[in-house]
Amino acid sequence: MLRLTTGRFVSSTTTTTSNLIFKNFLRLQSTAAGSIPKTQKAVVFYENGGPLHYKDIPVPKPKANEILINVKYSGVCHTDLHAWKGDWPLPTKLPLVGGHEGSGVVMQVGENVKGWKVGDLAGIKWLNGSCMACELCETGNESNCEHADLSGYTHDGSFQQYATADAVQAARIPEGTNLAEVAPILCAGITVYKALKEADLKAGQWVCISGAAGGLGSLAVQYAKAMGYRVIGIDGGKAKEELFKSMGGEVFIDFTKSKDMVKDIQEATKGGPQGVINVSVSEAAISLSTQYVRPTGTVVLVGLPAHAYVKSEVFSHVVKSINIKGSYVGNRADTREALDFFARGLIKSPIKIVGLSELPKVYDLMEKGQILGRYVVDTSK
Amino acid sequence: MLRLTTGRFVSSTTTTTSNLIFKNFLRLQSTAAGSIPKTQKAVVFYENGGPLHYKDIPVPKPKANEILINVKYSGVCHTDLHAWKGDWPLPTKLPLVGGHEGSGVVMQVGENVKGWKVGDLAGIKWLNGSCMACELCETGNESNCEHADLSGYTHDGSFQQYATADAVQAARIPEGTNLAEVAPILCAGITVYKALKEADLKAGQWVCISGAAGGLGSLAVQYAKAMGYRVIGIDGGKAKEELFKSMGGEVFIDFTKSKDMVKDIQEATKGGPQGVINVSVSEAAISLSTQYVRPTGTVVLVGLPAHAYVKSEVFSHVVKSINIKGSYVGNRADTREALDFFARGLIKSPIKIVGLSELPKVYDLMEKGQILGRYVVDTSK
Amino acid sequence: MLRLTTGRFVSSTTTTTSNLIFKNFLRLQSTAAGSIPKTQKAVVFYENGGPLHYKDIPVPKPKANEILINVKYSGVCHTDLHAWKGDWPLPTKLPLVGGHEGSGVVMQVGENVKGWKVGDLAGIKWLNGSCMACELCETGNESNCEHADLSGYTHDGSFQQYATADAVQAARIPEGTNLAEVAPILCAGITVYKALKEADLKAGQWVCISGAAGGLGSLAVQYAKAMGYRVIGIDGGKAKEELFKSMGGEVFIDFTKSKDMVKDIQEATKGGPQGVINVSVSEAAISLSTQYVRPTGTVVLVGLPAHAYVKSEVFSHVVKSINIKGSYVGNRADTREALDFFARGLIKSPIKIVGLSELPKVYDLMEKGQILGRYVVDTSK
Amino acid sequence: MLRLTTGRFVSSTTTTTSNLIFKNFLRLQSTAAGSIPKTQKAVVFYENGGPLHYKDIPVPKPKANEILINVKYSGVCHTDLHAWKGDWPLPTKLPLVGGHEGSGVVMQVGENVKGWKVGDLAGIKWLNGSCMACELCETGNESNCEHADLSGYTHDGSFQQYATADAVQAARIPEGTNLAEVAPILCAGITVYKALKEADLKAGQWVCISGAAGGLGSLAVQYAKAMGYRVIGIDGGKAKEELFKSMGGEVFIDFTKSKDMVKDIQEATKGGPQGVINVSVSEAAISLSTQYVRPTGTVVLVGLPAHAYVKSEVFSHVVKSINIKGSYVGNRADTREALDFFARGLIKSPIKIVGLSELPKVYDLMEKGQILGRYVVDTSK
Repeated sequence: MLRLTTGRFVSSTTTTTSNLIFKNFLRLQSTAAGSIPKTQKAVVFYENGGPLHYKDIPVPKPKANEILINVKYSGVCHTDLHAWKGDWPLPTKLPLVGGHEGSGVVMQVGENVKGWKVGDLAGIKWLNGSCMACELCETGNESNCEHADLSGYTHDGSFQQYATADAVQAARIPEGTNLAEVAPILCAGITVYKALKEADLKAGQWVCISGAAGGLGSLAVQYAKAMGYRVIGIDGGKAKEELFKSMGGEVFIDFTKSKDMVKDIQEATKGGPQGVINVSVSEAAISLSTQYVRPTGTVVLVGLPAHAYVKSEVFSHVVKSINIKGSYVGNRADTREALDFFARGLIKSPIKIVGLSELPKVYDLMEKGQILGRYVVDTSK
Repeated sequence: MLRLTTGRFVSSTTTTTSNLIFKNFLRLQSTAAGSIPKTQKAVVFYENGGPLHYKDIPVPKPKANEILINVKYSGVCHTDLHAWKGDWPLPTKLPLVGGHEGSGVVMQVGENVKGWKVGDLAGIKWLNGSCMACELCETGNESNCEHADLSGYTHDGSFQQYATADAVQAARIPEGTNLAEVAPILCAGITVYKALKEADLKAGQWVCISGAAGGLGSLAVQYAKAMGYRVIGIDGGKAKEELFKSMGGEVFIDFTKSKDMVKDIQEATKGGPQGVINVSVSEAAISLSTQYVRPTGTVVLVGLPAHAYVKSEVFSHVVKSINIKGSYVGNRADTREALDFFARGLIKSPIKIVGLSELPKVYDLMEKGQILGRYVVDTSK
Repeated sequence: MLRLTTGRFVSSTTTTTSNLIFKNFLRLQSTAAGSIPKTQKAVVFYENGGPLHYKDIPVPKPKANEILINVKYSGVCHTDLHAWKGDWPLPTKLPLVGGHEGSGVVMQVGENVKGWKVGDLAGIKWLNGSCMACELCETGNESNCEHADLSGYTHDGSFQQYATADAVQAARIPEGTNLAEVAPILCAGITVYKALKEADLKAGQWVCISGAAGGLGSLAVQYAKAMGYRVIGIDGGKAKEELFKSMGGEVFIDFTKSKDMVKDIQEATKGGPQGVINVSVSEAAISLSTQYVRPTGTVVLVGLPAHAYVKSEVFSHVVKSINIKGSYVGNRADTREALDFFARGLIKSPIKIVGLSELPKVYDLMEKGQILGRYVVDTSK
Repeated sequence: MLRLTTGRFVSSTTTTTSNLIFKNFLRLQSTAAGSIPKTQKAVVFYENGGPLHYKDIPVPKPKANEILINVKYSGVCHTDLHAWKGDWPLPTKLPLVGGHEGSGVVMQVGENVKGWKVGDLAGIKWLNGSCMACELCETGNESNCEHADLSGYTHDGSFQQYATADAVQAARIPEGTNLAEVAPILCAGITVYKALKEADLKAGQWVCISGAAGGLGSLAVQYAKAMGYRVIGIDGGKAKEELFKSMGGEVFIDFTKSKDMVKDIQEATKGGPQGVINVSVSEAAISLSTQYVRPTGTVVLVGLPAHAYVKSEVFSHVVKSINIKGSYVGNRADTREALDFFARGLIKSPIKIVGLSELPKVYDLMEKGQILGRYVVDTSK
């Protein structure tokens, strides 16, 4: 059973002190960098949906273009659950070590690696590597590359103590960053930040976050605020409204109370938000966003509901000249920028830490829909 | 009965000679500008779907912000049919003189008008005026203004010999332009040109015109070519393929023959076109375009099928990071630019000219789907 | 002699109460809107550099496209001094009423005016009107129109109690705004806001304000902060550093102390700011900015030093791929946006209010370089 | 002595036949790819300005991230002369094999290389590699990376039969391309194409090429035409005018005849070109371009005159709101696009082929200013 008492919500108010301790810790780490063990703890499965083994496996060796990262923490994302169950159209590698929100310390660098040294802080993110040869890779759209290599999906990920990562794509985490709190930024944070960029707004314009108080939504609200936008949020209930307001949200629309969402949103924003970020995976909520968005505005799709369609009425789509834009995970520049906002203290990432050995229990809670906030696993336990 | 022998397809090869004659004609016109008659010929109706009267009505007087145009020619568009029948959600003015593709000569300028003088060539287009005070008007999106005033719909249009037009929005037609051939550019031409701009392509990229050999499509192919794009077109039959190729199209996909449209289009363009312009009003064709467009590409909606929806699968919309963008009629800059391409001889506009008195017969052919090419009415007959 | 005791620096902390009073006052104003006097107080001159007369002149009548504004307050700008002296290449209208930062209440609207009603708050800004017919006007660059009509220069401005303004260009001031404090926003505020937009930065990037603690500079710092940028400022002295920091500036470079400005700026910003706004009119400071700007960054010119040149070394300009961009006054959208930031309380505008009759004394202080902060004249005194 | 009779100007009209032969040749090449010799011919120098040795040197071995290219042809650029003489601020590698416009066939791929195979056509360009870790590399500005590795400057280049190249940056030349003619595209072509992109023009706008009939200029004219721009060119003499017109140029300004360049250019383009590409290295010509460019237009600097400055008057820079933008060599996407225009037959590249052994004589002609057109060396001779 998952002992919730071992999990703790880390407050960011103690950052200064803990960072000092943390830096000392890093110094030790980096001194010890030469001594890489032969085996390590990991959570691995051999068939999709099969048993999740918490066991010793060999430490992988980095290729000439890779770095080896001593993973300290890893966030747990719904995608990890899909990878395990194998219910997405794309097949996973097998056996597989999942995880794609890993933060840690560089232990070894491949012979052709440029720009990394032992002791640097590094992050494992969803896109582990791409072909670097196609038109998409050339134009900063490497996430859309058809040869994309994915951490915790087609390449062993961050649910282990030592993981390899492509040196070009690995995230550069600023020195002094809290490695536990930064973990969810490496997927959730980058994803919502990229979605906000795709909305192509100017400071002072309105952005609506549909699903504003959930895991992605609460990060989206904070990034939007830091980018100078005015934030209107949609979610349900008084507690969520309070959370939303505490993060800097300006107008809250409670879908459990509003009798006419389109009207309420357009009135509050004098014509509709210029951008909408759909982190909610409700098909109805997504289609509604094509109605309340301001003329010439942009609806961004970022959540990934299975088998769902966005429907938009052609006549009003044209006459209002709106844009419906898909936004996938960020590229290297998006990653650096999203981490920079976090490192500057503008984004709070509330997490609950448990041991890596407890990962199966986290999956169980996820399946039951009992997850509140973001779980982060500590690979040393 | 419409005597097709009176209609004639004007060839553009005689432009040089006819322009000389035309310029002399203009000189006479402009000399005569002071003598505006009290009454004129027009086609007017008093109730939607009611009789179309070809009769004498008073010549309107321009307001302080308007110009009075002696309309020489006007294109006939499906929108005119909708205005007459009144089958769109937006009510028309009544009684109404339709038409919004009018070309002619300025006869009089209102007292506050800047930048126009008697004798200038001017065009009447769909957007007659807008509030000039809202955010949309301020940012060049006046077509999307909720107080838009529409020629031949909420303001008497170009199916009369003398029409008033807002001086700010009226189209400035370059001196020496063939007034009959330019008429369809004033709506159809501007609309497809704007749609191509909205696709936001670079020279050398692929654009697919869905419905490539129709009225709008054939203009779209020519504009796309002039903008440096590579053009792939979809339509049906050998004759359409030949027309498409003669206009500079590079790859033709015949929907009557292709067994896998998505595959054929993606192979021909090595990954799909970066942009798609849906001038076809087929709902199935529109949804198909979300599948064959290249990752990070843009699907533009511009045709206005009634009661139709565009459906896009959220998962692939996100993973491919595509855009679905509505494009309405162009603004003043789009108008000037579209006319400039025409004036430079890069766009051919094949038309059939009949007398204004024969407008009811043109509507009749339209309703029966027997229209080929674009009809233009000569207001003097 | 200017009694400085009559001038008062208005604090923004009392806004809530004063706004209530202000709204009541407006209601009275608007009721009384019908009663426009025949004559009014104004400051007028008959030849450039000649005597400035504070006297009664007729109240002007708005044309069909104009509104009549009861000017309450007007900022005083260095441009007003140039207009009076006539030392710029462009000749002024004569006789002339200067002023182009006027805030007040609409008293009358011309017959063709759309979107204004008596009682609305309105602002007079530098661009009074433009041709609305050229390519520049069509694309939102009306400030660059060669037929631009300029308030307080080619059109009588805001140093009078009742002024006419082109309805399209007049600024729409949100209801409830403090009319004295908003006055400097109408030129200085819009100008720096536009310059920041021209730098084309993303939230989280560095912008350097050269001349950070002056009149324009302090507005620039606040707008930059509100737009999500990180602000580095250049100016001289401890007092200026404190002012800069109090407005949200992050790094201050004191030119009286720095031994290597380029090095200091590049180190503080890890490679140089992505954008530079030159509000300083020092030719040396402007050229220096081409050296410390980050590769691919943008240097914005916005101050107007007479007879000055920006010099940039071609080799490094190319190899660093920088951009030197001129930014003039804002358009209608820039105006609305700049006013919106102010109305939301994100921009403080410290002013000193004196009577209109004291304008000659303000000019005198300006010429002697003894101006601190922004003077605003109250037209009722 | 350079026997000019051995040099031959290759006509592009024979492409079809020669391509067939060429493809057979390639098939042989690729079959033979396994047999890489130990030594090869190269031109090498041991000190800047010292003797140029045409001699046997070892064939280099590709690193894990590199490919080995059998260079068939290489263009000769003024930069190569600077590298040899060592008169630029940046020191070269020594000893050095110069050359950065090399075209050939892939013979071997490093173990970590993705996306290349033996037999592919590949090009060596100025940017051999970059850090791939900095903000500039992440955003497609790798040419501006401060750790840029440069072919024929800091990395042995294309004046040898076998050269190594970074697999990420090496140019992908489409199958069937004429390897001799494509050589100058790899630097000159990409450079002007990138400069045109930086001007940020729309199809139908005017671009001025200052130095229109020279080596870079004539490529710029052709790319501009292919991108849908209207081209105005500046150069001197009747022969140059004819060359300019034959490449699709529309208006020619002869600086040996024009009495008022600014006036002539602005009249021909109705207000000035929206963009200017300064391939001319005349400081006076560059400064002039800031005067004739259209308001809100962009002046692009691309030529690299030593010790030259661009000077722009601040007042008109601001009031006209112009941009002066530096454009350096293109990135990977620019390279692919520039090559694609060439492969489609839209760009002609007139060259003169001589043996690699004759390189010293080409340098001699260059120094004497006796070069006409572009020299390409055949590495087999």
